[in-house]
Amino acid sequence: MTSSRTTVDPKTRAGILAEAIPFIRRFAGCSIVIKFGGNALDGADEATALSSFAQDIVLLRSVGILPIVVHGGGPQIGVLMERLGKVPEFRDGLRVTDAETLDIARMVLVGKINRDIVGAINVHGPLAVGLSGEDAGFITAAARNPSLGFVGDVTAVDPTLIANLIAQGLVPVVATIGSDASGQAYNINADTVAGAIAEAIDSEKLIFLTDVVGILRDRSDIASLIQRLSADELEGLIREGIVGDGMIPKAAACLSAVRNGVKGAHILDGRITHAALLEILTEEGVGTMVTPK
Amino acid sequence: MTSSRTTVDPKTRAGILAEAIPFIRRFAGCSIVIKFGGNALDGADEATALSSFAQDIVLLRSVGILPIVVHGGGPQIGVLMERLGKVPEFRDGLRVTDAETLDIARMVLVGKINRDIVGAINVHGPLAVGLSGEDAGFITAAARNPSLGFVGDVTAVDPTLIANLIAQGLVPVVATIGSDASGQAYNINADTVAGAIAEAIDSEKLIFLTDVVGILRDRSDIASLIQRLSADELEGLIREGIVGDGMIPKAAACLSAVRNGVKGAHILDGRITHAALLEILTEEGVGTMVTPK
Amino acid sequence: MTSSRTTVDPKTRAGILAEAIPFIRRFAGCSIVIKFGGNALDGADEATALSSFAQDIVLLRSVGILPIVVHGGGPQIGVLMERLGKVPEFRDGLRVTDAETLDIARMVLVGKINRDIVGAINVHGPLAVGLSGEDAGFITAAARNPSLGFVGDVTAVDPTLIANLIAQGLVPVVATIGSDASGQAYNINADTVAGAIAEAIDSEKLIFLTDVVGILRDRSDIASLIQRLSADELEGLIREGIVGDGMIPKAAACLSAVRNGVKGAHILDGRITHAALLEILTEEGVGTMVTPK
Amino acid sequence: MTSSRTTVDPKTRAGILAEAIPFIRRFAGCSIVIKFGGNALDGADEATALSSFAQDIVLLRSVGILPIVVHGGGPQIGVLMERLGKVPEFRDGLRVTDAETLDIARMVLVGKINRDIVGAINVHGPLAVGLSGEDAGFITAAARNPSLGFVGDVTAVDPTLIANLIAQGLVPVVATIGSDASGQAYNINADTVAGAIAEAIDSEKLIFLTDVVGILRDRSDIASLIQRLSADELEGLIREGIVGDGMIPKAAACLSAVRNGVKGAHILDGRITHAALLEILTEEGVGTMVTPK
Amino acid sequence: MTSSRTTVDPKTRAGILAEAIPFIRRFAGCSIVIKFGGNALDGADEATALSSFAQDIVLLRSVGILPIVVHGGGPQIGVLMERLGKVPEFRDGLRVTDAETLDIARMVLVGKINRDIVGAINVHGPLAVGLSGEDAGFITAAARNPSLGFVGDVTAVDPTLIANLIAQGLVPVVATIGSDASGQAYNINADTVAGAIAEAIDSEKLIFLTDVVGILRDRSDIASLIQRLSADELEGLIREGIVGDGMIPKAAACLSAVRNGVKGAHILDGRITHAALLEILTEEGVGTMVTPK
Amino acid sequence: MTSSRTTVDPKTRAGILAEAIPFIRRFAGCSIVIKFGGNALDGADEATALSSFAQDIVLLRSVGILPIVVHGGGPQIGVLMERLGKVPEFRDGLRVTDAETLDIARMVLVGKINRDIVGAINVHGPLAVGLSGEDAGFITAAARNPSLGFVGDVTAVDPTLIANLIAQGLVPVVATIGSDASGQAYNINADTVAGAIAEAIDSEKLIFLTDVVGILRDRSDIASLIQRLSADELEGLIREGIVGDGMIPKAAACLSAVRNGVKGAHILDGRITHAALLEILTEEGVGTMVTPK
Repeated sequence: MTSSRTTVDPKTRAGILAEAIPFIRRFAGCSIVIKFGGNALDGADEATALSSFAQDIVLLRSVGILPIVVHGGGPQIGVLMERLGKVPEFRDGLRVTDAETLDIARMVLVGKINRDIVGAINVHGPLAVGLSGEDAGFITAAARNPSLGFVGDVTAVDPTLIANLIAQGLVPVVATIGSDASGQAYNINADTVAGAIAEAIDSEKLIFLTDVVGILRDRSDIASLIQRLSADELEGLIREGIVGDGMIPKAAACLSAVRNGVKGAHILDGRITHAALLEILTEEGVGTMVTPK
Repeated sequence: MTSSRTTVDPKTRAGILAEAIPFIRRFAGCSIVIKFGGNALDGADEATALSSFAQDIVLLRSVGILPIVVHGGGPQIGVLMERLGKVPEFRDGLRVTDAETLDIARMVLVGKINRDIVGAINVHGPLAVGLSGEDAGFITAAARNPSLGFVGDVTAVDPTLIANLIAQGLVPVVATIGSDASGQAYNINADTVAGAIAEAIDSEKLIFLTDVVGILRDRSDIASLIQRLSADELEGLIREGIVGDGMIPKAAACLSAVRNGVKGAHILDGRITHAALLEILTEEGVGTMVTPK
Repeated sequence: MTSSRTTVDPKTRAGILAEAIPFIRRFAGCSIVIKFGGNALDGADEATALSSFAQDIVLLRSVGILPIVVHGGGPQIGVLMERLGKVPEFRDGLRVTDAETLDIARMVLVGKINRDIVGAINVHGPLAVGLSGEDAGFITAAARNPSLGFVGDVTAVDPTLIANLIAQGLVPVVATIGSDASGQAYNINADTVAGAIAEAIDSEKLIFLTDVVGILRDRSDIASLIQRLSADELEGLIREGIVGDGMIPKAAACLSAVRNGVKGAHILDGRITHAALLEILTEEGVGTMVTPK
Repeated sequence: MTSSRTTVDPKTRAGILAEAIPFIRRFAGCSIVIKFGGNALDGADEATALSSFAQDIVLLRSVGILPIVVHGGGPQIGVLMERLGKVPEFRDGLRVTDAETLDIARMVLVGKINRDIVGAINVHGPLAVGLSGEDAGFITAAARNPSLGFVGDVTAVDPTLIANLIAQGLVPVVATIGSDASGQAYNINADTVAGAIAEAIDSEKLIFLTDVVGILRDRSDIASLIQRLSADELEGLIREGIVGDGMIPKAAACLSAVRNGVKGAHILDGRITHAALLEILTEEGVGTMVTPK
Repeated sequence: MTSSRTTVDPKTRAGILAEAIPFIRRFAGCSIVIKFGGNALDGADEATALSSFAQDIVLLRSVGILPIVVHGGGPQIGVLMERLGKVPEFRDGLRVTDAETLDIARMVLVGKINRDIVGAINVHGPLAVGLSGEDAGFITAAARNPSLGFVGDVTAVDPTLIANLIAQGLVPVVATIGSDASGQAYNINADTVAGAIAEAIDSEKLIFLTDVVGILRDRSDIASLIQRLSADELEGLIREGIVGDGMIPKAAACLSAVRNGVKGAHILDGRITHAALLEILTEEGVGTMVTPK
Repeated sequence: MTSSRTTVDPKTRAGILAEAIPFIRRFAGCSIVIKFGGNALDGADEATALSSFAQDIVLLRSVGILPIVVHGGGPQIGVLMERLGKVPEFRDGLRVTDAETLDIARMVLVGKINRDIVGAINVHGPLAVGLSGEDAGFITAAARNPSLGFVGDVTAVDPTLIANLIAQGLVPVVATIGSDASGQAYNINADTVAGAIAEAIDSEKLIFLTDVVGILRDRSDIASLIQRLSADELEGLIREGIVGDGMIPKAAACLSAVRNGVKGAHILDGRITHAALLEILTEEGVGTMVTPK
């Protein structure tokens, strides 16, 4: 990080710290679920992006905010499948997850990406604990569609384990595998899991760090970014098709979250350095915020 | 499990339950570290062995004993390396662990074997929580020998996270990855980790479930099984070469454990169904017990 | 107790322990009120019966079940009255309890039988604490009928003292004397007290250890034992006179208990060794169970 | 109690209450062991004496002082033995306690006298809980001399049960039966038990309510009452034979108590109404106080 | 204080202490708000009156009653204003409180009278803690009438700070300054504050120590003192003008308090030594008690 | 405060926040004693200086740092004395504090300055609680020299009250009056009190906000500011007379503090806006830091 010391005078520095007061005070003791996309870990700047993200998590935790990290890992799963010579099978455009694919997904999500995030945070101190939804059975899942194999939907989230870890001052990092009563594991969409956890633990905010600038009124025009909209307005945009494609799970999770007690859901551009920090601790937004009303 | 109902009369059944009293009372509230070998998961009866092991863990927990499971996974790591076309490199007879090998080891240990054990236990209820030594930085490691790459030794175990999970009634299942202050991960020998955890949490017992019958005075004669010996006697056997080879890390962990507060260390034949249960709750032993004196 | 070691193989032994899992887990942390009849202490095998009962109590406590013992002592009171030359007086078939009779009853119940039970349990460790309902005024009583003297009915049970002793890991052993606001003591039917305590402390089970095999459809035919019936069915049997005589206070206590939150009430044959243990920890019953529905 | 209202003016009344301040403040939260003699319960004014004693206990408890009552019952045991036609046997001048005598002693102490004291206190509210030293095995005893039968000496006092009851705001009332590891009960001298409990719970004071005015320098002259003396001085008086006979167990208990942490031991005339109250809450003494130095 | 020792015999002394039992038990653990008038500190006997009041507070606290002291200080504020050459300004008969007057009031109330009361109590031990309603913003105030300046009315009382201090065993002494959200301080009528605090902390009693004998039916006849009346009766007397003038704020506070949960409100003659003590701990009243019904 | 928004880009803003991480984490949960000089409240910019100071206190508290404010008020005491026509008396160059002077000092410190600081902080929320050392007797004092009257030295600080208020999330603001066992109050040097409190509560830092730039090697040359020195070095400067005059009480408090467990003592220029904030949360110092070694 470029030192700001030589360029910013003491008074301005003090001012920036002092401006953060109302935000720090408002959110201290509040839990915030942050979905960190697998895309962010899949490029030239992977190490930098992860390190900057980890620093933000630690800063938020330092000032009493309680972050929970949820992550996916689609691209990385594909890479390992390919290396293992596993040919993906599709049905109605959706990938079929057979037992071996599930094993691969679980190894990548729980054994690789989750570990990398935990490690990046713990450089700053022993804060992060990796979890899969199978741990203490905290995410209960069911098959979405038997013909798709072990692709699951969330049926319940038990907040006890996460709440206990948070109470010990730790930062849970969640890989989005769930299991059913028979012990069968399922791979679940990470956006959906992030929303379900935010609801279950009465989270203050739900934040999606994505690789887009936010919700656009005109997808071809970045200047049409919507900075703030209500749940009803977002529902309208979905109906009209203005919000679509890959944004649907995020938008649906935002809608459900703010209608079930979460005070704000954010879709941010994770490519901006310290996006989460700036969104939470300063007045300027760097994406779209969905509010209950 | 074969029902015992038709073959055992009520008085005998009551007698067996009643005989377990002194053991249950003595060990209630005590933590017991159980090392579950990767070998046990690598055969025709894998599912049965895992299921029986999981049942024992749940029974022990049910009667107030606090098990911590530690597992390895050497054979399974080798399988995935082979599938990925990774040629193992050896130096002085020891496998070199480069960054990619470490990634593979971590995926297998944390993302596959650890998950399978957690899942098998959680069929009986949401009890197990998978951990890697990286979580909350609870296992600090250092390189054993730079020329071997990321093969680590334990430098410290912080018992806080495990103690907190136990206090919540949960069963930690530990994959033996550690990390250093810079966040670098290391693969560590699982026998060594089991012993280090047993010492750090003042465990009552340290139990190795192996694929041998125990320590033999004559390795060619199963009838020469030593049922009980002191730390000093074990040290003598190691010096004389009677205990050697693959038994060395286990024997060393037993020695260190009983000399640092653990009351008994056991090398059991994990191929016997319910070996841990019988060892802890009945008077008959099914292997070798090492005592402080 | 006859050792089962030589006659039962390890696998069967492990199986019997393992079968107890669901019961131990279901009842751990639950309180169970066990009425131990005075009759059981009044025969050739008194010492054996008491010792076996005490062992059961300790085993149940060891696995986290919270027993509360309630006892009567009619026969022994009669013996001491006779030795003291006190002639019993009856009115309408009921014994009149004057002040001296009450003193004798209290000495026998609180100073003899209660002490013997406490002593038998405490051979296994300092677990049992003897109580009379006068202690901390926890059983409030009122005269049943002034012409009968100090024969009382329960008007209230304050669960605080019992709950606190249980929370300290202790086993309350209750002699069924109550008192009114003026400090006057009353002798109360022990079956009734057992039921009232089970209701007041939200007990999981209420168990009567009797000298009969249970409720019989035909009192002359032991094979007509009813293993399980609902509260409504039991009420029917009482109306029809099929359940009568000495069974009435027990049956009434069972009825009231299961209709006020207790999940099951049992009338067992206390002459069977370890009857309570087998009833609670195995699937076979050894008497009659009354369920809410 | 005679009303003082008409005879004492408001200012004097206020003054008496106000004078009690330093004593109430000094002793609030302190436990005080009070030995209540069996003699006090064996006369024409038994009911009055017990009622006045109970009132004092309740007042002390009301102002935050934590009384523990210990009682004997020699005379009453003798009465019941006689009624049961039991001829006392003596050896070297000491009564032999066979099994039947022990049963009688236990019935009288635990089932009669203890109950009467508990009842008298509980008229004022549900404060008192009767205990025998067998409860939770809190008094461990051993035979004093095998030829005397079940006459015991205190070998240990576990303060846990008493401390827990006190913490719940209750007043333990202790009958002086102890037991050994095999569950055998013993009758123990109540003066000795009172002293042992006072030491075990770090009591502030140990008070003996007796039927004498205190320790006299000349046993034939009541005016020779010693109001205050040190442990060493008391030891001298015992050596010289000035303190002897029935006073020896009390004097020995006082000596041991003040030499093991109790701040003051008192021998009071229990025949004076409210003796304990006046001794603790006013400056005037009504007997002899033994101090550590 | 005149010693009562020589004039009152032990039995009577014991009787007076014993009579206090039901009152001490009833009020132990209850908070009692006592308004101590500034008048009481403004005469020849100031030191004596304060010392006697402090002694009462300490005695009440010693026996588990939880006093909160609220005080005014009108006369002393006037004295300092005069010394500083500040001419009082009146509007419609009410004194106008400009910024300088408020500063003077605050210095006298918080910096002088509050300190003197705290000091007088703390002679007996470190019990009292001085508070202003500004501390932790516990009294929120608003201007009564802008033309009167900084004369405030209570808009809210947050009981947290007082409750926490009480829980630490301390005695809050409250100077009646409040503040609004902008930090502006206001001087508030102390009678009103006493009532508002009594309501906010669910006080058992509200006691006004005044310089009158209580509420008189005929203000010219001291013998017409009303010892006890209901809220409705008091309201009638106010309507009829029988209660008026300086008594109005006290009467209004009494009315509001007993209609909002306080069990009794008392107007006592603070010139009687130990008035509060006698009112709370003996049966005789020394003034007027207002009851809810 | 001038908004920094328009002039600082997001990345720099994020950088400044992120740089504060190690400081916030290191000091979170640590108490810091800050002496706020009376001089700072005595000029044209009084309101601004106080408001800026209050904002710093609130920010520090927001991020988990636990500030305790200690203040003096010499100049303001002088002003009120003059207005009241009180002629100061000096002996050996020291002002004599008679009873009236003490009353005036107490009114100014406790009733005026303390209130103003509490009010300025509480504009941001109900955080501050004003204390005098008399409260709960937490500062015990003794006369420095009888001929000087009620000028006191600290003899003991009881940290209980402050620790409890901090544990409730509050900010104690301390006026430096102490008292002795007889209840006599004393005025104490505020620098000395700040140091004594820092030691008593095991404070992390002791900070003096003064009207000088720090300790100068050459008092005529501001460029000779010593940024950091050890306790031994400071002692040398005092011996050499380089540190002298009004700096002595501060320097002595710094010396004693760092030699008794406080990790750093700072003499800062309170005229710099947000001096405390910048000193604690950024790397640049704005004065002199004294370290243990």
